[in-house]
Amino acid sequence: METIWKPYKKNFTYSYSLGAFPTFELLLARPKDVLEVLIHSSFTEKEKLQSLCKANQVPYQENDKLIAKLSDKENVFVIGIVKKYQSTLDSQTPHVVLVNPSNMGNLGTIIRTCLGFDIKDIAIIGNSADLFHPKTIRSSMGAVFRMSLQYFDDFQSYRKNYPSHEVFTFMLNAKEQLTIDRCLKPKLYALVFGNEATGLPMEYENVGTSIIIPQSSYVDSLNLTIAVGIGVYVFSQNGKVK
Amino acid sequence: METIWKPYKKNFTYSYSLGAFPTFELLLARPKDVLEVLIHSSFTEKEKLQSLCKANQVPYQENDKLIAKLSDKENVFVIGIVKKYQSTLDSQTPHVVLVNPSNMGNLGTIIRTCLGFDIKDIAIIGNSADLFHPKTIRSSMGAVFRMSLQYFDDFQSYRKNYPSHEVFTFMLNAKEQLTIDRCLKPKLYALVFGNEATGLPMEYENVGTSIIIPQSSYVDSLNLTIAVGIGVYVFSQNGKVK
Repeated sequence: METIWKPYKKNFTYSYSLGAFPTFELLLARPKDVLEVLIHSSFTEKEKLQSLCKANQVPYQENDKLIAKLSDKENVFVIGIVKKYQSTLDSQTPHVVLVNPSNMGNLGTIIRTCLGFDIKDIAIIGNSADLFHPKTIRSSMGAVFRMSLQYFDDFQSYRKNYPSHEVFTFMLNAKEQLTIDRCLKPKLYALVFGNEATGLPMEYENVGTSIIIPQSSYVDSLNLTIAVGIGVYVFSQNGKVK
Repeated sequence: METIWKPYKKNFTYSYSLGAFPTFELLLARPKDVLEVLIHSSFTEKEKLQSLCKANQVPYQENDKLIAKLSDKENVFVIGIVKKYQSTLDSQTPHVVLVNPSNMGNLGTIIRTCLGFDIKDIAIIGNSADLFHPKTIRSSMGAVFRMSLQYFDDFQSYRKNYPSHEVFTFMLNAKEQLTIDRCLKPKLYALVFGNEATGLPMEYENVGTSIIIPQSSYVDSLNLTIAVGIGVYVFSQNGKVK
């Protein structure tokens, strides 16, 4: 393949998984979307990676210079080039809904955490940090490739497509507390979280049950990633308790 | 005060809280440890900050150049200079124990999360990322100033000082699962977490009850910050359920 890949920009139709771990995840989860794999001459698991590429008819090349050019980090030995894709969410499984998530590192961590609790469907509402930015992919450790991610202009559009989910909005001014003794046990749920800095806009009070994770007055709010982690854990637990 | 403060180094006896929010927290929580406050000429809450300084006999100066020199970020309008201190943990309250935490951002987030669930005593075992680095302080949003933080060379030294806590070690190869239906309800507990990359060493299996947060096989482990968040949430909930 003669293509010379260039440092990532948001308008590209492809992106990069930087590092061996996320690139193995990419090859395992979405082999058909991999355009090429770049391997550093000093990568220690070269054979394993090459045979995985061969088995999936993915082209690969050894190219230390190109790897250096595409990655800021010094310790990147593998890069996967992945075609961007869109997905449709599963209407029969729980969703996480992120409204205007603005930080790529957080987005990656949230995606990885959701996958850790078997939630594989994430709706993104409004403006979002770049889901396909190499930083997002890297902080998700490649978890992003196992997810269905679907964009919506607004919550109403999401709701029109998925009307059956019981909606829970995480808000600081909520009346209901997320405690483990009084369990919420919906079969099909959507957990909605706002932006890192601003939270959910007021109008989200009326789209479902608003809940707050009980927290001390010493902090203004929990980190978004922590809130999602706790929310997803508790709801996935309730599913199992049932 | 004639002192010219210099860009932070680990061996300094003082450090910096970068930003208005953490500096207000510093002044409220530990006014006696504040050496000086630097205020940018364009800071909008100047009067509020100055009167808080005056009330606590903390010197302050307007010095845009010095602020620029001490902070990498452009949007820093306030810097607090804080004397480093050591604390002793409260023997009657729950602890979080961090073994070799290596990332300053994570450490700050963990501290803030603990404070969010009213855990104010953190033991640090072995080598640790710099607790007083401006990055740690900033990612804790100043929560670090409300905590007692005590260092120990090894877990045995911690245990000698605090023998009454029931110990729970978070490990991937644990036999017990942290579920919400079968509640662990100790009165006094210490939750022990390992390093971001390596987790807890094997010998920690025998220092208490080892537990794992149930997670899917798609991720190799949860993020350390997420694991601490879920652990602290569940145990603080159990305290309330009792």
